[in-house]
Amino acid sequence: MDFLFSKTDKEEMNFFHLFDILGTAAFAISGASFAMEKKMDPFGVLIIGFVTAIGGGTLRDMLVGREPVSWMTNIPYIYTIIISVILAIIFRKKIGKLSKSLFLFDTIGLGIFTITGTEIGMQNNFNPIISISLGMMSATFGGVIRDTLCNEIPLIFHKEIYATACILGAMTYLMIQPLQLPIEVNFIITIGIVIAIRTLAVVFKWSLPSFYKQ
Amino acid sequence: MDFLFSKTDKEEMNFFHLFDILGTAAFAISGASFAMEKKMDPFGVLIIGFVTAIGGGTLRDMLVGREPVSWMTNIPYIYTIIISVILAIIFRKKIGKLSKSLFLFDTIGLGIFTITGTEIGMQNNFNPIISISLGMMSATFGGVIRDTLCNEIPLIFHKEIYATACILGAMTYLMIQPLQLPIEVNFIITIGIVIAIRTLAVVFKWSLPSFYKQ
Amino acid sequence: MDFLFSKTDKEEMNFFHLFDILGTAAFAISGASFAMEKKMDPFGVLIIGFVTAIGGGTLRDMLVGREPVSWMTNIPYIYTIIISVILAIIFRKKIGKLSKSLFLFDTIGLGIFTITGTEIGMQNNFNPIISISLGMMSATFGGVIRDTLCNEIPLIFHKEIYATACILGAMTYLMIQPLQLPIEVNFIITIGIVIAIRTLAVVFKWSLPSFYKQ
Repeated sequence: MDFLFSKTDKEEMNFFHLFDILGTAAFAISGASFAMEKKMDPFGVLIIGFVTAIGGGTLRDMLVGREPVSWMTNIPYIYTIIISVILAIIFRKKIGKLSKSLFLFDTIGLGIFTITGTEIGMQNNFNPIISISLGMMSATFGGVIRDTLCNEIPLIFHKEIYATACILGAMTYLMIQPLQLPIEVNFIITIGIVIAIRTLAVVFKWSLPSFYKQ
Repeated sequence: MDFLFSKTDKEEMNFFHLFDILGTAAFAISGASFAMEKKMDPFGVLIIGFVTAIGGGTLRDMLVGREPVSWMTNIPYIYTIIISVILAIIFRKKIGKLSKSLFLFDTIGLGIFTITGTEIGMQNNFNPIISISLGMMSATFGGVIRDTLCNEIPLIFHKEIYATACILGAMTYLMIQPLQLPIEVNFIITIGIVIAIRTLAVVFKWSLPSFYKQ
Repeated sequence: MDFLFSKTDKEEMNFFHLFDILGTAAFAISGASFAMEKKMDPFGVLIIGFVTAIGGGTLRDMLVGREPVSWMTNIPYIYTIIISVILAIIFRKKIGKLSKSLFLFDTIGLGIFTITGTEIGMQNNFNPIISISLGMMSATFGGVIRDTLCNEIPLIFHKEIYATACILGAMTYLMIQPLQLPIEVNFIITIGIVIAIRTLAVVFKWSLPSFYKQ
């Protein structure tokens, strides 16, 4: 996400890069685990790990016209994904025990990717509704592509408050812009909102209201 | 479809915009209905409504390199889709009764999106076979993406004369260009062809010849 | 693949174009056969033939930003695909007997598309890991899209050394560049590697190591 910051920002933003890498790793591990449940071979596991980690941002870049898409020129992310997938394969029997850490990293990733997408929308002067959509898509459509390639109806279309957390995060991020807070504060508030909503949703088993008869 | 017309054309083309909006709305409703049959949650219903309405045009824009893709800068269409999906959810039990109007709007949408895609192909000086393909894809690939996301083999690959109506409409649109008719006449003829073929196909249960043994 | 060669190269490279056309035809036939197994109608068979033949290159072009994507301005390939699909439909009962020739053409296609993608990556000065990925994707993702549209988990994610052959071919192609061999020699070596690995894999039933308990 280098493009988001001026040089001075960058020096201050190492913690953000760390989060970004953690989120990418968590998404790659979640994809790899999903592929292993489907009994894919190592190549399939690698590709599904990749697609889960970079699919949302790739779709966003192709829709906006930011090409070559960002992972093509961001080799550290490629290595992060490859290493994460290899670790997921090696420790596949122990991933269950790490599920709380992974849930946290995954949700951090969700928050960070939401910010990236929303920010790109703002930089292109898109309507806020488009910027929010880009934020949500960056964060969630990797999972949509993963589910589609694994021959499942995408999870976020029928379960879990997941995209909703991103949408509310993106709205928050837009709404606090006029306050001119330091960019780190904006990030922390937005990621905090996403983490809070998703965690509360899981703890209290929130879901979107269903309008189908039981 | 503002880009298609000069300013004077635009003033005359309000009826076209009306049709375009009607087609978009019909596609969104058809997508939302499909998602509700799959028992998706409201977010899933919204996304499938969106994808059905804008998927074909989005793929076309990405193939041609018209980015950001058109719905990103066409907010009225976004609102049309959101309102259509909300109405589809509210009146989900009554949609069956409206099926004739919806069929008409859907087919109008098919005709209009065929024209948009074909026109974009011509403006890019593509070979006619490419322009026709772009017209057909603009009209039908939203449905292909909808079906794929809903974990079905796309309907148009094994049932119904649907894409064929668009291909014949696009061919007509290209063939009448040299006649230098007013653009409205070209539109009406093309949309008329698409509506006629699809309606006749449904009424007489036409389908493409099957070459499989019964 | 005209863009890859200077004018003098072109005159020498007719044999390459022949291979490229053969590969495209083989991919289209493989897609069409797959669609016929799924009992699709002629339109579906045509689209799946197309997608199998051009899907990988199309995704590559969209990721890199080479738009309009290459088949839009390469009409001979369009005709090759249409004719191949028609022949596949007409001779659908005899395709089984041709399976050895088709396997050969298909594998030649795999090798050629691997080279195209890798070469495009190099021309864009991408990291070698990205160039190799582009080579592999150009060759194999048409099949991934075909399988996804046909509602199957993509074959290459759980069976057959197929993508691996392309990856090793792409690595070879990159590694022999510094030798400054004539471009035809590079091509022949790379395609030879892909053919050899895939053929040996099929003959000896190689697959990637599985890490699931039996």
